Amino acid sequence: MSTKTDNKTPAPTWSPDVLRDFAAAFDPKLEALLSKKTDIPSRLKDAMTYALLAPGKRMRPYLATQCCQLAGKTAGQAFAAAAAIECVHCFSLVHDDLPAMDDDDLRRGRPTTHKQFDEATAILVGDALLALAFEILATGSPKEANLGQMVQVLAESTGATGMIGGQAADLAGQDQPPSIEKTQYIHQRKTGCLFSAAAKLGALAAGAPDAAIEAMGRFGLQLGLAFQIADDLLDVTASTDQMGKATSKDATAGKQTYPACVGIEESKIAAERAAKQAIDALSSFGPGAADLQALAKYAISRNY
Amino acid sequence: MSTKTDNKTPAPTWSPDVLRDFAAAFDPKLEALLSKKTDIPSRLKDAMTYALLAPGKRMRPYLATQCCQLAGKTAGQAFAAAAAIECVHCFSLVHDDLPAMDDDDLRRGRPTTHKQFDEATAILVGDALLALAFEILATGSPKEANLGQMVQVLAESTGATGMIGGQAADLAGQDQPPSIEKTQYIHQRKTGCLFSAAAKLGALAAGAPDAAIEAMGRFGLQLGLAFQIADDLLDVTASTDQMGKATSKDATAGKQTYPACVGIEESKIAAERAAKQAIDALSSFGPGAADLQALAKYAISRNY
Repeated sequence: MSTKTDNKTPAPTWSPDVLRDFAAAFDPKLEALLSKKTDIPSRLKDAMTYALLAPGKRMRPYLATQCCQLAGKTAGQAFAAAAAIECVHCFSLVHDDLPAMDDDDLRRGRPTTHKQFDEATAILVGDALLALAFEILATGSPKEANLGQMVQVLAESTGATGMIGGQAADLAGQDQPPSIEKTQYIHQRKTGCLFSAAAKLGALAAGAPDAAIEAMGRFGLQLGLAFQIADDLLDVTASTDQMGKATSKDATAGKQTYPACVGIEESKIAAERAAKQAIDALSSFGPGAADLQALAKYAISRNY
Repeated sequence: MSTKTDNKTPAPTWSPDVLRDFAAAFDPKLEALLSKKTDIPSRLKDAMTYALLAPGKRMRPYLATQCCQLAGKTAGQAFAAAAAIECVHCFSLVHDDLPAMDDDDLRRGRPTTHKQFDEATAILVGDALLALAFEILATGSPKEANLGQMVQVLAESTGATGMIGGQAADLAGQDQPPSIEKTQYIHQRKTGCLFSAAAKLGALAAGAPDAAIEAMGRFGLQLGLAFQIADDLLDVTASTDQMGKATSKDATAGKQTYPACVGIEESKIAAERAAKQAIDALSSFGPGAADLQALAKYAISRNY
């Protein structure tokens, strides 16, 4: 797939090294935030640390931080927003992996939280990380930020009309006939909502005007969709590359995916369209948006 | 047990009818709040409604509302705080009942949420109710309230240093030798924190001064402890009343309880002490606090 989605924006400068550098600086601060909370029962705290500080791409915190900087403020000013969104993301991974949900034993090469500890602890870890997200927002956001709007954005994008609703639709859609409407509904909520929230929270942390918040939110949503469709495609590619395994993980689970609904070529076009819409959403921000726009190109340039 | 804990306060006027009347007015508003959210997958929404609108005492919303009124404002001004705290309470019941936790099939005579629906849905219902609590606070709190403090109070009292930490300690303490320190730790967090938060949120919704918020928080904490110790006692009484069942539900589960640690008589004294401390916490509020003080007397007057 060509990465030349938009010739007017600067050439992509973005590489996964950028995220690795970001995570190397972000993770110790996240660890410090959790470790200073001394009044947590030890097993729960160990499991929270295991889940929150597992090696991760930190894509959502990076997005929050970049959007705050694009709005003219420092990375530090976005830290609470970035940490809160990562708590929500990690909570969702722990609960999605539970036996009653996707029943996964491994995540990023390590046992999932319920395998490493136990199921009750994993449920509590998820619950505690979700509560911690709002505590971090309330205690760490800059004074100039509209905290009410930040809490609302995080809660709505996480809750029954957002990510959690997406997971419910994902479970309900398994083993149903492929439907592009269902797939779009699920991807928008399960992935898009939290990406959009990350971008908006970064903008809100900077005290950005409404138009900038809205534009960055659109960028985040389309970036999330581009990544998710690309992940759907990679899941198909990965499985066909493996000798003796004809079906992908998503297909085995009977999941609603783009390739299952519209085939590989149409899925590639949908991913390109999402990336293009993401890039366009930041067109009014000038050269400062080049890194984020390059990230959107990277999302669809991975090898599938 | 005598209810004459403090002769200086008015004679108890409080009866469970007060809570029934409160719930009859509160529940339709709670239902309206949830039903207007139209973009929730239907099974998830049905299960959220089932869990949130199960017949309940609405003790915590009542407490929030009373504290707001004691601080000179209307019941309506506390509605968001009251609804948020009930969402958190109901989330905790749904998750505590899960097979991996307390594994309960019945709650208040109805199947638990995971029995009525399924385990995955119950996990998502709890998650969604927790997110909804913060959404309600952020969108429905009065402008004069300190929203940052409200979110902080709710998040801390819910999270790993509060109720969720208490549930973790409760699970860890099962089948351990009885320990009054462990029991106090668990009761304070599992029950006391959310009662305290309910009272504080009511005061915060009224824009009450710090001293009033602190006093109401102490009242809520001690009220919660009085109720919890009384529940420990009722669990023992109920079981010995049942022919052919020698041990209580708590004892069967190997739970840390007051009677298991210090015996029935000492437990009664501890419950009276908590009720007395609750009543004393409101001594500066004058006759307006009589209903709440009577509630504290009621907490320990139940028949055990």
